[in-house]
Amino acid sequence: MTTNGTASSSSSSYTATVLYGPKDLKVEKREAQPPAEGQATIRIIATGLCGSDLHYYIHGRNGAFVLQAPLVLGHEAGGRITALHPSYKGDLKVGDDVAIEAGVNCNTCKYCREGRYNLCSDMSFCSSAKTFPHRDGTLQEFMNHPTDYLHKMPSTLTYELASLAEPLSVVIQATRRANGPQPGSSVLILGCGAVGLLSAAVARAMGATRIVAIDIDQAKLDFAKSSGWADQTVVLPRGKRVSGFESLEAAKVLKVELEKELGEEGFDTVFECSGVESCMQVGVLLAKAGGKVVFVGMGTPEAVLPTANAFTREVDLIGVFRYCSTYPAAISLLGSGTLGEGIAKMVTQRYPLEKAAQAFEDLARGKDESGKGVVKVMIGDYCGQA
Amino acid sequence: MTTNGTASSSSSSYTATVLYGPKDLKVEKREAQPPAEGQATIRIIATGLCGSDLHYYIHGRNGAFVLQAPLVLGHEAGGRITALHPSYKGDLKVGDDVAIEAGVNCNTCKYCREGRYNLCSDMSFCSSAKTFPHRDGTLQEFMNHPTDYLHKMPSTLTYELASLAEPLSVVIQATRRANGPQPGSSVLILGCGAVGLLSAAVARAMGATRIVAIDIDQAKLDFAKSSGWADQTVVLPRGKRVSGFESLEAAKVLKVELEKELGEEGFDTVFECSGVESCMQVGVLLAKAGGKVVFVGMGTPEAVLPTANAFTREVDLIGVFRYCSTYPAAISLLGSGTLGEGIAKMVTQRYPLEKAAQAFEDLARGKDESGKGVVKVMIGDYCGQA
Amino acid sequence: MTTNGTASSSSSSYTATVLYGPKDLKVEKREAQPPAEGQATIRIIATGLCGSDLHYYIHGRNGAFVLQAPLVLGHEAGGRITALHPSYKGDLKVGDDVAIEAGVNCNTCKYCREGRYNLCSDMSFCSSAKTFPHRDGTLQEFMNHPTDYLHKMPSTLTYELASLAEPLSVVIQATRRANGPQPGSSVLILGCGAVGLLSAAVARAMGATRIVAIDIDQAKLDFAKSSGWADQTVVLPRGKRVSGFESLEAAKVLKVELEKELGEEGFDTVFECSGVESCMQVGVLLAKAGGKVVFVGMGTPEAVLPTANAFTREVDLIGVFRYCSTYPAAISLLGSGTLGEGIAKMVTQRYPLEKAAQAFEDLARGKDESGKGVVKVMIGDYCGQA
Amino acid sequence: MTTNGTASSSSSSYTATVLYGPKDLKVEKREAQPPAEGQATIRIIATGLCGSDLHYYIHGRNGAFVLQAPLVLGHEAGGRITALHPSYKGDLKVGDDVAIEAGVNCNTCKYCREGRYNLCSDMSFCSSAKTFPHRDGTLQEFMNHPTDYLHKMPSTLTYELASLAEPLSVVIQATRRANGPQPGSSVLILGCGAVGLLSAAVARAMGATRIVAIDIDQAKLDFAKSSGWADQTVVLPRGKRVSGFESLEAAKVLKVELEKELGEEGFDTVFECSGVESCMQVGVLLAKAGGKVVFVGMGTPEAVLPTANAFTREVDLIGVFRYCSTYPAAISLLGSGTLGEGIAKMVTQRYPLEKAAQAFEDLARGKDESGKGVVKVMIGDYCGQA
Repeated sequence: MTTNGTASSSSSSYTATVLYGPKDLKVEKREAQPPAEGQATIRIIATGLCGSDLHYYIHGRNGAFVLQAPLVLGHEAGGRITALHPSYKGDLKVGDDVAIEAGVNCNTCKYCREGRYNLCSDMSFCSSAKTFPHRDGTLQEFMNHPTDYLHKMPSTLTYELASLAEPLSVVIQATRRANGPQPGSSVLILGCGAVGLLSAAVARAMGATRIVAIDIDQAKLDFAKSSGWADQTVVLPRGKRVSGFESLEAAKVLKVELEKELGEEGFDTVFECSGVESCMQVGVLLAKAGGKVVFVGMGTPEAVLPTANAFTREVDLIGVFRYCSTYPAAISLLGSGTLGEGIAKMVTQRYPLEKAAQAFEDLARGKDESGKGVVKVMIGDYCGQA
Repeated sequence: MTTNGTASSSSSSYTATVLYGPKDLKVEKREAQPPAEGQATIRIIATGLCGSDLHYYIHGRNGAFVLQAPLVLGHEAGGRITALHPSYKGDLKVGDDVAIEAGVNCNTCKYCREGRYNLCSDMSFCSSAKTFPHRDGTLQEFMNHPTDYLHKMPSTLTYELASLAEPLSVVIQATRRANGPQPGSSVLILGCGAVGLLSAAVARAMGATRIVAIDIDQAKLDFAKSSGWADQTVVLPRGKRVSGFESLEAAKVLKVELEKELGEEGFDTVFECSGVESCMQVGVLLAKAGGKVVFVGMGTPEAVLPTANAFTREVDLIGVFRYCSTYPAAISLLGSGTLGEGIAKMVTQRYPLEKAAQAFEDLARGKDESGKGVVKVMIGDYCGQA
Repeated sequence: MTTNGTASSSSSSYTATVLYGPKDLKVEKREAQPPAEGQATIRIIATGLCGSDLHYYIHGRNGAFVLQAPLVLGHEAGGRITALHPSYKGDLKVGDDVAIEAGVNCNTCKYCREGRYNLCSDMSFCSSAKTFPHRDGTLQEFMNHPTDYLHKMPSTLTYELASLAEPLSVVIQATRRANGPQPGSSVLILGCGAVGLLSAAVARAMGATRIVAIDIDQAKLDFAKSSGWADQTVVLPRGKRVSGFESLEAAKVLKVELEKELGEEGFDTVFECSGVESCMQVGVLLAKAGGKVVFVGMGTPEAVLPTANAFTREVDLIGVFRYCSTYPAAISLLGSGTLGEGIAKMVTQRYPLEKAAQAFEDLARGKDESGKGVVKVMIGDYCGQA
Repeated sequence: MTTNGTASSSSSSYTATVLYGPKDLKVEKREAQPPAEGQATIRIIATGLCGSDLHYYIHGRNGAFVLQAPLVLGHEAGGRITALHPSYKGDLKVGDDVAIEAGVNCNTCKYCREGRYNLCSDMSFCSSAKTFPHRDGTLQEFMNHPTDYLHKMPSTLTYELASLAEPLSVVIQATRRANGPQPGSSVLILGCGAVGLLSAAVARAMGATRIVAIDIDQAKLDFAKSSGWADQTVVLPRGKRVSGFESLEAAKVLKVELEKELGEEGFDTVFECSGVESCMQVGVLLAKAGGKVVFVGMGTPEAVLPTANAFTREVDLIGVFRYCSTYPAAISLLGSGTLGEGIAKMVTQRYPLEKAAQAFEDLARGKDESGKGVVKVMIGDYCGQA
């Protein structure tokens, strides 16, 4: 496939990784298709792996969404436009570097019209099995995607940073829903995976003056601190996982323990990024009266919450589902260097497309063969372009 | 006690009802005290009884707050100013009719300064045992109260309506926290006690065009409908009360049942006014994606919630604790007739102060001796003034 | 043209009124076109005339937008679907009655994605000469329009009410931008044309408890009052129109005069619906500190404003441009009867399509041949269907 | 005056600078008064001069507020508590360093109760002649002030930084009223005096990724850029000052000129900090559709504004009057170093209290005797403590 038009691209083939079932990821050749009306062809250069990708890889499903047909995973990606449909009239050009917004919404329902297109019930999202037929994701050399969802990258962005615009978008969505953090306020981050770290980075960029990060992995906390994203960190022991009311009792004990270290003032905004039930609970308990707890990750689907504690203190419990209209801000934050040097360092492992299965296995274990812990795994064309 | 100054009031005595312990309510004579600096003396003419009053009456406590000394209950009240401190410089006059805002906040903490004085940790609230010494409530003939918390009544207001400004304030607080209902939107009311009914009335006054009310008492639903506050009602059977995860399973079944009757579209705003765990749960399940559930009553203190359902649909869970800066709006709504004729009809029973214990007993049973169901019980001076 | 499909509609012709220049409105026959992909054919049954239509009719332009080709005016309309494109998959059916949302936005720009599609710079709006080629409006028997902009009418709506959903949408947009009026608050309406009257009606429906309406036409004020939309009215003398700083001096005098009648408390929300410079000015002066002035009409394009008065009192000056995502709420308000019986009475004149020129002439004069004052003029098929 | 109580302080005297009329600033000795109930005595160590102070010094008035009695100027101050009233029960101690919030509000009016105490009509503000008797300001060695308005300084704060909490508060208020800048958005700063520079600094701290600063003084622009607060700067020529409609014509020309340099995209948030009419106008013209213009400075009291341009693009015009509940955030931002090293460098001149008149003269000229340009002038005790 060449980059100079649509004519020659119809006869070439390219590599795609396709999930057929739990741990059944095949590397295949596919025939290139010219972009349909409204679409561009993008050469995918970097894709970051996400927890939902891992769920599909391991279990063949992600929560309620079960694989019904072979599916290309991946939805955090940057690449280069190699072809545009002849009828295209917009500003994009062949050769442009773009971040790919993975979800294609209907544009006509109430939610789309209101600008909350992440709630569109007809959303077709790359690499998700929620809708059928599934929309293939970015773990392939080339893909066609509607031009409306391609965001031109500034020259200061690498493809890897462009792929980080996706999880960063989730975090920006969280800050919009929480209307904060406000400058000069305090933030608690529960869980320092990629989304937790990005939450800390964005909280810092928005002027939060006290950021406390909590995780079970000291290395991640050290990274948060050395990146300038956390002022204080607390490492928790890996305990027996409990659930429900038992978990809430544990959370109350944990709250008292943490207050010894962190003081009793509470936090203006809590970003719950761990999904662990006791963290969801302790997040509520540690929020300041009038504060907000944003549940950024998927989390425990049915959780016991200290409702009277939350509601009589007017602590709002706020969920986040993907994002809407966040890519321009995400790209601007990434391209301007606002988030600091830690961002680029979040990529801890890189694999070529052919080794995607290995990447998933390492991600599942939380470390690669060299023993290095995983923050963000990238898959892509690592012959010098990324 | 006369109305023409402070001098003569020092030698008179008046009647107060004082709670000494569970069901131990004594009618006593107290010596009148002149108003201290910053205070007025108010002759209390009508007091509405609230669920928290009932809890103190029955159990000698309200949740975590235990009676530590004899306490006058009552905090929903209207009355007449009979004396002002000589140093008073404001607009109030002896003889003015006022609604009494029952909570006295510190005015200096972060929350008071920010206008969220309901979250003030030094709030001293009439009839509450949270702080010690307790601040006596309004179930007495006279009381002294800071003038800053007296809201002059328009001539269109009765003392009973003035007392309703208190629960109405809770509802106004709920609408502010929920930023709605928006005009033309849909509302679900779970639980049609006084607060639920007022929620429906305010939702109607704010332009909600579809209001569905749910309760276990057909009479309350009929009242909501005949008052023009509900478009559709659903009576639920009184079932075995279950809790926790078992309750959530019941709520999921209930949701399916209700959708058969109500359609599957969901509601923009849900006012949970029942405090019952399965209603808290079904409220979340019946909220529209992007909607809000406001927990207006105290509710189950630790509840299982369908968190993934809420958070992946960006349904916000929002608590309400009392109110701040709501009295002017409440009085304006009541005085203008905006809420309709149903408001005055919400008062279903009236008792003189001496029969306060009887009032509490009837309230506990949910009906009076004649068998009439209770919505709002009033205690006061019923010699023609109310 | 029949209503049972697309096949037979290609050979029929229908009547359209086409503006060729100032006061040059021709009644023409046009050949029906089948709906293109994404479109429906609608038989237009009622169109309300708007001030912008009148500007085009009189001057051949509306502000900066000059007629560049013959144009069908009209953009407030209700009608019936007579044909759908064969590929259509949505919920609409031939025979459905619909309110027509007149502006077609791009769905891809920042504003469309954020849900503020009224700011879309590629918006193509029926009957407007802003974009070229112009998009014809609704003053014709039939038109093709994208199905995404057709809002199904409940059975409680007449076609005339459906056409009022358009100006009502402007008012709903105003309330959203002003975040109010809040229930129990005060509202000032400056100018009681159709938009001013609708502003009063919506303010009432949202729980405003004090609504003052001001106009130079006593009849309009009487109508506002008898419809229950205004509590108090002030008729202003028709004065010499002044502008700029001279107008501001007049506004200051007017403010003092009005305060004698209205009190000095000011208004929480001011809807400026007159477009007259001195009203824009007095609106600011009469807003309460911390209040909002919403400029609903087009108004004087370059106006002297009492900026220090506004800004040191934190009175926000807020504009409104058309509307976005308002039709569902508008239709719900109209269909539910929430706005009261005055709404239907706002239609003061009705003309068949062939007499559109007469309608414009009467609208320009402000009264019809019988001398009856104009509020809202309707043009349509008045053989019993409207 | 000693720091160990109130007893001994009654016999000592201290230095105060008192304004008797235009340019009539006397250095006087005053007798120390022990703090009244609710008050503390503070030794003032640093006071920043503000434009309003300068107006009083030069003209004996500030806008409409005319000196009616001798007045101590100054309201941006940090100091140390030297005495507390014996009845004081709070957390402050003699010896504590504090930033002084200069306005004392009534705590009882609608605005105070709602948390918008900056709009309190009974506000008594240090160094302002708005209310009478005037409340003396901080250009004196000692003052008594209510403890509720003293904000404890973290150890990382100097007294000068504490005094900057006041103008920084104005900027924080501006960001709250504008609900931005949002992270990743663009900001235009018009006028780079102290408030403009602080606006740029805060915009950066909140994640604005494109900040353009405009002024007539290249040195100030260079400072903004070297402090990391501006990405791009434009120096404007000092022109003939025009006003009214003439100014608007000039602004339109300027807009076109600036767009050549800055692009035509416009800005999400415009901070108008110059008060110059043509800047107020060009600020509106350069705002993005849907954007906000915040008028941070006092500005031209009656200005011609391009209203149609603003309102049809839904550009909100938002004023700022002082601040409310901003000191904790201001102190946190200053104490944490979030705003960068430029903040401390904003203090360009320092004078002892006795040379206050000289300070005002230099401030009026815009440079000191050495020719160094003025950004922020400090007056205080410069024997090593500041």
